[in-house]
Amino acid sequence: MIDQFERLPGIGPRTAQRLALHLLRQPEEQVRVFADALLAARSQVGQCRSCFHLSAEAECEICRDQERGNGQICVVADSRDLLAMERTREYKGRYHVLGGVISPMDGIGPESLQIQPLVERVDRENASEVILALTPSVEGDTTSLYLARLLKPFTTVTRIAYGLPVGSELEYADQVTLARAFEGRRRME
Amino acid sequence: MIDQFERLPGIGPRTAQRLALHLLRQPEEQVRVFADALLAARSQVGQCRSCFHLSAEAECEICRDQERGNGQICVVADSRDLLAMERTREYKGRYHVLGGVISPMDGIGPESLQIQPLVERVDRENASEVILALTPSVEGDTTSLYLARLLKPFTTVTRIAYGLPVGSELEYADQVTLARAFEGRRRME
Repeated sequence: MIDQFERLPGIGPRTAQRLALHLLRQPEEQVRVFADALLAARSQVGQCRSCFHLSAEAECEICRDQERGNGQICVVADSRDLLAMERTREYKGRYHVLGGVISPMDGIGPESLQIQPLVERVDRENASEVILALTPSVEGDTTSLYLARLLKPFTTVTRIAYGLPVGSELEYADQVTLARAFEGRRRME
Repeated sequence: MIDQFERLPGIGPRTAQRLALHLLRQPEEQVRVFADALLAARSQVGQCRSCFHLSAEAECEICRDQERGNGQICVVADSRDLLAMERTREYKGRYHVLGGVISPMDGIGPESLQIQPLVERVDRENASEVILALTPSVEGDTTSLYLARLLKPFTTVTRIAYGLPVGSELEYADQVTLARAFEGRRRME
C-alpha cells in the first residue's frame, strides 16, 4: 500500500507511510468505500464528446447548461486549466479542451490534439468568439498562432492577455513579461 | 561603522559586520575613495527637470537623447521602474517619474506627485501617447484611472497589459490575474 501511494505525484516515502498507516487504523468498511470510490471514478469518468472535459456523462455539465451557450468557446490545454478559468467566475461561455499543446520536441503534433473536432465545432455551432487561453510559453504561443490561422475564416479569435500579474511589482518583473506587457498595452477608455 | 551599514535596506547585523571588517582591512586610501564616492553621488545626483528621473545633470540622458523624442511618454512610479522598463529594450520613447502612486491611506494625494508637471509637459510637448506603466495594485489602478481622466483631453492614454506572466502556468495563476487576463484578451490578427 505504501508503494502504491508513493507512485502518486507529490507524495514522498514519508507521506505515503503516514497515509497507509492512517488507513490501517480505519474500520475495514471505510477503506472499502475509499477503494470503491477510486474504481468508480476511474471506470465512469470519461471525456465530454463535445468539449473533451472530464465528464461522467456523454456531455459535461457545462456543455449541457443552456445558459452557457453564448457563442463563446474558450480553448484550454487540459481540464485543470478549465477549472482554473471556472474559479475566476468571469467567463460565461463554453470550453474546448485540447489535451495538450503542440510540442514537436515531445512528438506532439496538431493531429495528437483535439484540434479537428474544434474546427468542426466552431463551424457547426457558428461560434461568435474563440478565446485562446494557453500557457505563455513557446509551445503555447505556437499552438495559439496555429489555431488562430485555422479558425480565423470561421470566427473572431482572441487570446488572453500576457503581462504583469496582479499584485506584482513592476521592478521585479522579468524582461520578457514586461516587454509583453508593453507590447500588449491597451487604450484606456 | 557596523551600525551605519545595518541601516541600509536588506543588510542585517552579520552582513554589516562582514562589510565593516572588510573595509578595516583595506588601505586607508581605498576607504577614502569609497567615502568620497558616496558623498559625490549624494551631492551631485538630483532629478531631471523634465522627467524627474535621477540625473547628475539638469536633464537626464534619456531626455537629452534626440532619438527618443518620438512623442511617447511612459509614466512610472519611480526610477527603479524606469530602469526595469529600460532593461526590456523595447521602449524607445521618454519617461515621466511620478515619485510614487496615489495612496490616501499613506496620505499621498495627487499633489504629492509629479502629476501637474506631467500634464503641462504632455500639453507643451504635444505628446502622441502616454503609456501608464504602474504596478497592478489598488493604488496603481487608482493612479492610472486618475491620470487617464486628466490626460485624455490632450493625448492617447494607454496602459501596459495585466495578465499571465511569460513562462507561468495557467493552472497556478491566481484568480484575479486570470480574470484580468480574460478581460484584457486581444484579437489575434
